[in-house]
Amino acid sequence: MVSKVQDIFMLLGDSITQGGWENGGFGHRLSHVYARKLDLINRGLSGYNTEWAIPVFEQCFPTKAQQEHSPRVRLLTIWFGANDACIRPSPQHVPLPKFTENIRKLVHIVKSPESDYYSPDTRIILITPPPINTYQRKADLASRNPPLELDRKFEITQAYAKAVKDVGREEGVAVCDIWSIFWEAVGRDEQSLSRFFSDGLHPNEAGYTIVYESLMKTIQNEYPELHHLNLPYVFPPWAEINWDNPHSSLVLKQ
Amino acid sequence: MVSKVQDIFMLLGDSITQGGWENGGFGHRLSHVYARKLDLINRGLSGYNTEWAIPVFEQCFPTKAQQEHSPRVRLLTIWFGANDACIRPSPQHVPLPKFTENIRKLVHIVKSPESDYYSPDTRIILITPPPINTYQRKADLASRNPPLELDRKFEITQAYAKAVKDVGREEGVAVCDIWSIFWEAVGRDEQSLSRFFSDGLHPNEAGYTIVYESLMKTIQNEYPELHHLNLPYVFPPWAEINWDNPHSSLVLKQ
Repeated sequence: MVSKVQDIFMLLGDSITQGGWENGGFGHRLSHVYARKLDLINRGLSGYNTEWAIPVFEQCFPTKAQQEHSPRVRLLTIWFGANDACIRPSPQHVPLPKFTENIRKLVHIVKSPESDYYSPDTRIILITPPPINTYQRKADLASRNPPLELDRKFEITQAYAKAVKDVGREEGVAVCDIWSIFWEAVGRDEQSLSRFFSDGLHPNEAGYTIVYESLMKTIQNEYPELHHLNLPYVFPPWAEINWDNPHSSLVLKQ
Repeated sequence: MVSKVQDIFMLLGDSITQGGWENGGFGHRLSHVYARKLDLINRGLSGYNTEWAIPVFEQCFPTKAQQEHSPRVRLLTIWFGANDACIRPSPQHVPLPKFTENIRKLVHIVKSPESDYYSPDTRIILITPPPINTYQRKADLASRNPPLELDRKFEITQAYAKAVKDVGREEGVAVCDIWSIFWEAVGRDEQSLSRFFSDGLHPNEAGYTIVYESLMKTIQNEYPELHHLNLPYVFPPWAEINWDNPHSSLVLKQ
């Protein structure tokens, strides 16, 4: 079966996830280091909030019945908030209590024994949305034709990031707190966040580098058995193949 | 089912494929442009020749029975020859007639109605191995501890590239002729191939850029319906979601 032999590392999120395979992005770096170990699957959905992502996730993640025929999802990142935190009248806006409930629901879909998608082998990492650089974002929106009003506020995105941390703590799920990591890295100066963003919202290569490194630290601390350095190749390195009888070393036991 | 909603673009090959998700590599560029359209699956196997790859491929590609539960493999690149063309006594060496037979066998696994893996929807692209820069390769091997002898010859890799083209023509399968594209791009001067290689064998970012662009041209010419610009998103762009009734636009018809 396609990929059945190799397990999966799924990245669920919005445009910040979808764009992770740009040059220097965190997704392609993960694809590279997990090559022959886990298949990276991009389930980033530009512009989506949690409300729209839930029905998509329920079609992407295998049900209990389907899991028999599917590769296992060993690692799953859930990274939302950047769009949910849009302010009214944006159609992307999701009120904070509903956002919190939705993040919890995404976790429960995978971790609740009552769920149709229950997958006890899947290790989840919640990622907090990065802080917004409203100076950069405002300039970017003002430069468009027609110009657009600022659609996100610094303190509101901060509150959505806190909600993700709260759910992580309450549900016992690992959190990679990108909001705080970006914020501390620029000495808590909003304008300095331009180091990490192309437009005040989406990480540039420097921002994605921190995302990648932070995520690898979270994996090392929380799920070290799934760190790429601790996972063997699915199929053996070529020097370890039995050259006189290749099939004996290349056909995996089911 | 994981990925059942989204079809697959599988890259089968050796280290030149496996390394394709390095910064600037052809794999991550494909992952980026096919995001939300096709999942890129890396089945590159560093050091492998066709003899060892066949049993791996038979475990990675879905059988006819498994295809019911699997995402469809819409595009498949088969890129070998760089290791098969090693000269004796390298254990990677595969004699030219056997290499030709193996490339044909890989094609037949997918395209022959008699095959257990028959998949008429899968579009195959054979890729020829790049020319070897023996000057660069020799220096790289001599610098190792202990130093190693040159293990590949320019004319031999050229013969393996020709064999891939012959199989493509005979089997009616598209060929992306990287050997000739690299060779012409450097004005048929072996030493100038260093522009495209990190070590005389593996492409650098400039080399992978040509690989990516050449492959996109092949797809445009041979299978234009599978060019990323001609494929819709699996799930709609956020602005096209029915905001009053999201499920109506987000739940795909089976």
